[in-house]
Amino acid sequence: MLKNIEGLLIDLDGTIFKGEQLIPKAEEAITYFRSLNKKVVYLSNRGNISRKMCLHKLLQHGIKTVEQDIILSSTVTALFIKKHYPFGSVWILGNDGLKEEMKTYDVELANIPEEADFLVITLHDDIHYSELNLAFKAAKHGARIIATNSDKMYPNENGSAIDVAGMIGAIEATTGRKTELVIGKPSCFMMEAALEQLMLPANKCMIIGDSLESDIAMGKLQGMKTTLVLSGNTSTDMIDSVHKKRRPDYIVESIFDVR
Amino acid sequence: MLKNIEGLLIDLDGTIFKGEQLIPKAEEAITYFRSLNKKVVYLSNRGNISRKMCLHKLLQHGIKTVEQDIILSSTVTALFIKKHYPFGSVWILGNDGLKEEMKTYDVELANIPEEADFLVITLHDDIHYSELNLAFKAAKHGARIIATNSDKMYPNENGSAIDVAGMIGAIEATTGRKTELVIGKPSCFMMEAALEQLMLPANKCMIIGDSLESDIAMGKLQGMKTTLVLSGNTSTDMIDSVHKKRRPDYIVESIFDVR
Repeated sequence: MLKNIEGLLIDLDGTIFKGEQLIPKAEEAITYFRSLNKKVVYLSNRGNISRKMCLHKLLQHGIKTVEQDIILSSTVTALFIKKHYPFGSVWILGNDGLKEEMKTYDVELANIPEEADFLVITLHDDIHYSELNLAFKAAKHGARIIATNSDKMYPNENGSAIDVAGMIGAIEATTGRKTELVIGKPSCFMMEAALEQLMLPANKCMIIGDSLESDIAMGKLQGMKTTLVLSGNTSTDMIDSVHKKRRPDYIVESIFDVR
Repeated sequence: MLKNIEGLLIDLDGTIFKGEQLIPKAEEAITYFRSLNKKVVYLSNRGNISRKMCLHKLLQHGIKTVEQDIILSSTVTALFIKKHYPFGSVWILGNDGLKEEMKTYDVELANIPEEADFLVITLHDDIHYSELNLAFKAAKHGARIIATNSDKMYPNENGSAIDVAGMIGAIEATTGRKTELVIGKPSCFMMEAALEQLMLPANKCMIIGDSLESDIAMGKLQGMKTTLVLSGNTSTDMIDSVHKKRRPDYIVESIFDVR
């Protein structure tokens, strides 16, 4: 499977982690890839944590990496705004991780919602009505909506939990405004950030992930090898329902089986 | 007003044209700008016409320009897809102008909706149910949604008419999928295309348009001088309702008054 592959783009939730737990032998898989001198980046749609927080979690579980090899939708959103809207100020609806990432990349945070040029939405898994209301005010006063990603739900200990799409839905429904840009996978913004870090063309890379749309279809579209892991959200019967051009090259139980 | 300004970004509908009619003295205004050696680009959210069609209309009304100085959301959408998704195929929901623009920039058109990687939506002012249904099929089978713009309505001879947002709404409501990218103004994609053509930094340019959000707020955010014309969709009482940072530097009756 790994012949002619120089770089690996590895999803996190469902591929390396299941909630707070490491997927069995995931760290051994990474050690194996490293022993073959493959370059590795972690490419995740998580928009509510910062690179620093993510690095801490990976290291805690015995996966050695550096911040630059972690590419989150929070990271790419902050970099996008800094590059394309250097004078723009943002209001955040989401956990503090996104705010931390904006600060790291020197994106201006608005002092009051009414002054924000953009409302950036991600998951806020500890949200209170007052925070929803401040975001509502930002959009109502003209802030344009950017979302780190638009995942509808994520699996946790108690089944499925409401994800970013719920935060977006609340604001769109009440303000009549619409999201103009979703940064997360399967967008070109995530893919290009990963390939830039790897310094490799797509056809020398493989993406490993548990999502048919965010990981597999994205990889196929860019001319990359693709491996679906069954350790996350996708079961084999779901594969038949997608067009054959969007089906994975390989299907494995877990990342440890990528050999 | 034009002191220290080297480039002009000029909106079309509401600024140069009102429906099929030229706004009085608009061509004289352009001649005047040219006599001062100002560079001019036309920057419009129209996504259902091609550059060629737009050039024809401008020439017919006595406004001399070239295709390269016309930047439409159809143009920028086609260029975006070709650059960032070179292997992507598209299905179009919209008038033929957008299809023409895709062909010009060598974007692959899918043979059947089920095979499209992207559904690109723009205004289709002659739409039939069967076309809506084909677009529905594309999105239902996994095509990701990109919109040329998301304008809700446009003025015509009989008042207001349903615009692109109506086409988007039909597809989103029925497929459960959401638009991940809107290319049109006030996006950075349009602004950057215009500045690249002008070969000027934003602070040497002025944008002239009739929309507080698409033209004025965009210009202000990028550090440009801004002039609102009252010949289109905006009246003076609407200006007070936006944050002072998003108010125009100048307000004039029509483009002829930009001196």
